[in-house]
Amino acid sequence: MTITLTYRIETPGSPEAMASKIASDQSTGTFVPLPGETEELKSRVAARVVAVRPLENAETPTWPEVGKTHPPLSRADVDIEFPLDAIGTDLSALMTIAIGGVYSIKGMTGIRVIDMKLPAAFGEAHPGPQFGIAGSRRLTGVRGRPIIGTIVKPALGLRPHETAELVDELVQSGVDFIKDDEKLMSPAYSSLEQRVAAIMPLILDHEQKTGTKVMYAFGISHADPDQMMRNHDLVLKAGGNCAVVNINSIGLGGITFLRKRSELVLHAHRNGWDILTRDPGAGMDFKVWQQFWRLIGVDQFQINGIRVKYWEPDESFVASFEALSTPLFDASDCPLPVAGSGQWGGQAADTYNRTGRTTDLLYLCGGGIVSHPGGPAAGVRAVQQAWQAAVSNVPIEIYAADHPELAASIAKFSDGKGA
Amino acid sequence: MTITLTYRIETPGSPEAMASKIASDQSTGTFVPLPGETEELKSRVAARVVAVRPLENAETPTWPEVGKTHPPLSRADVDIEFPLDAIGTDLSALMTIAIGGVYSIKGMTGIRVIDMKLPAAFGEAHPGPQFGIAGSRRLTGVRGRPIIGTIVKPALGLRPHETAELVDELVQSGVDFIKDDEKLMSPAYSSLEQRVAAIMPLILDHEQKTGTKVMYAFGISHADPDQMMRNHDLVLKAGGNCAVVNINSIGLGGITFLRKRSELVLHAHRNGWDILTRDPGAGMDFKVWQQFWRLIGVDQFQINGIRVKYWEPDESFVASFEALSTPLFDASDCPLPVAGSGQWGGQAADTYNRTGRTTDLLYLCGGGIVSHPGGPAAGVRAVQQAWQAAVSNVPIEIYAADHPELAASIAKFSDGKGA
Repeated sequence: MTITLTYRIETPGSPEAMASKIASDQSTGTFVPLPGETEELKSRVAARVVAVRPLENAETPTWPEVGKTHPPLSRADVDIEFPLDAIGTDLSALMTIAIGGVYSIKGMTGIRVIDMKLPAAFGEAHPGPQFGIAGSRRLTGVRGRPIIGTIVKPALGLRPHETAELVDELVQSGVDFIKDDEKLMSPAYSSLEQRVAAIMPLILDHEQKTGTKVMYAFGISHADPDQMMRNHDLVLKAGGNCAVVNINSIGLGGITFLRKRSELVLHAHRNGWDILTRDPGAGMDFKVWQQFWRLIGVDQFQINGIRVKYWEPDESFVASFEALSTPLFDASDCPLPVAGSGQWGGQAADTYNRTGRTTDLLYLCGGGIVSHPGGPAAGVRAVQQAWQAAVSNVPIEIYAADHPELAASIAKFSDGKGA
Repeated sequence: MTITLTYRIETPGSPEAMASKIASDQSTGTFVPLPGETEELKSRVAARVVAVRPLENAETPTWPEVGKTHPPLSRADVDIEFPLDAIGTDLSALMTIAIGGVYSIKGMTGIRVIDMKLPAAFGEAHPGPQFGIAGSRRLTGVRGRPIIGTIVKPALGLRPHETAELVDELVQSGVDFIKDDEKLMSPAYSSLEQRVAAIMPLILDHEQKTGTKVMYAFGISHADPDQMMRNHDLVLKAGGNCAVVNINSIGLGGITFLRKRSELVLHAHRNGWDILTRDPGAGMDFKVWQQFWRLIGVDQFQINGIRVKYWEPDESFVASFEALSTPLFDASDCPLPVAGSGQWGGQAADTYNRTGRTTDLLYLCGGGIVSHPGGPAAGVRAVQQAWQAAVSNVPIEIYAADHPELAASIAKFSDGKGA
């Protein structure tokens, strides 16, 4: 059994030679011939270059190490196979050997990990999502349309009683899901404990009255896994069912520890990820990176959306959505994709049409709901109407004719600024 | 109390405007005016731009988002202050708010975090190194010269009994420190348990005979902190005193969990770090990144060396060494710098002279010791001789005249290829 990585290499030298060097460095990895290095040993663990697909030369170096006047920069996609026995199924070993080490190799002006194919042993060794798409639908009771979510804003600065006032209005609005901004964890002016105490009674009271439990994702991230578990327990004991986890800030170890013990839906925020992917010539594709967190078992995964406030182009979001929606080993290992950032009803049709016409997503609107001129309840209805229009293939301007909340949101948000 | 970050911004727009946007996004962070966002709230948590220092324009964009024909790319270093109350002392909150989020902001062609000044509260909240420089010296018994270390090679593929044969020779060589390659953790053909069982008796037997305990760093990294602790316990119970931890692969959470319980010297390997720093216009300086791991408390920190096999230029190593050697809050929070990669005696003088003429380091030579023509013992003596020459300010070619091991290593390794 083998693990196959695909690297996009950019080099003033030979991509073939660079591929061989990667394979050597990342397995037996010696620079001086050593007595113990036999052929038998090599066959046991050595990585092998199995394909080199040349690409057009790069015009400018991804990394400027070669200076202004430089030889032609060759590019190629290369497939390298690692024996599973050389790495095992531990994700930190996989990250170290197949990814981490390659970024330090000399003689390249860029390298990007663009694909990773894992053998079934990884599916067997890791739990995957505990709730995923089915669990998120079951807990929110939402069927046949996207789960509609919103975010408490401003990101930072509200005290628990101020947050609770906003949340009360949001809970009444008919929204399915509410989350803390990912930057809100447990600062002194709004400790998680106080926030849970202020918010959960509102959620439970609303559930008592309506039978519907709004899923509230509390920011429980902490660099100390013990503290993160205490945060988890706080939410769980108060009747909560979801948590925002900043996967990139706490790392593989923090999430693994949490997932093994978690009884909450884990809503993954990937802040910091951009630095690993924003330069197209370096880092890695989301298609690769997401596999780690899915195997560990996050349930919902934020991946931006169409026409976001951030740098990410729509094509990148679409590719991320497709990656999340493609089973690694089994359909149950797909987390719920979360589209967010500057979203309102205006992106519903493009989101629907460009992601395989599915409604299996969490559609997250901050200002798009909260700042609706008719208030959050009108904001939620407007987003639901936009999705009805999208699924029915009716332009929102037409659908808005007899859906006043949608009409109002078009008037407010369709100025190109987004929500 | 405030946390001050310095960002190097590259943008086709205005660096001042971009700085204000960062400050806003990473604190109150709304895009649509919201009812709750009052002046009082802003003063509680808002980040503030306190300085903008213009730099020369960039000639080419770090991130190619602007296309081939683009407006001038302005650059500036900007200082932004975050109120400590808005973040707290949790390192995952610090990473999320002050670093992670900034990489996603639109309208920049590059951003690099080049400095971070933390208030004393961070020193109080985090343990720092348990052993550090003093503990590493005490446990190895090395005084007045660098601790000399070597690495078992090849990186992967040796079975425990083959590793033990090599280690036996290395232990006899007089080397102070031996480590597993960072890529070696616990693969099927060489489980950590079997490796510990094969190696530790050699270390303990040598200690019995000579009174000197060679510090052996076993690769205990695992994405699952529970498993990593079991690995830690295995090493400890067998009499070991050190572990290699792949900090970037296991993340802040994994290391925090380990450090709270660890009784071993934690030797940090930073594989994967390069992607965060290799492009000078993006990511972050080591000066910033190292603070996280030092606060959590790694004891020894690998930072490459002079004339390494990897991409990193000497100046970058020198800056990293200086960063590690500068107390954050107290001299005891300095870990032992580890110079490695292609090292032999030939880099001793430059290492010594360019790092403040200190011998407080672990000088790690793989092939430079193991492949010495006279065997590892001669290799160790050659490296010690090179350091004697460096400290005495005698050129190694002169010193080699009556130090045959050094002469032999010059003959073998000074061809520019390094070790």
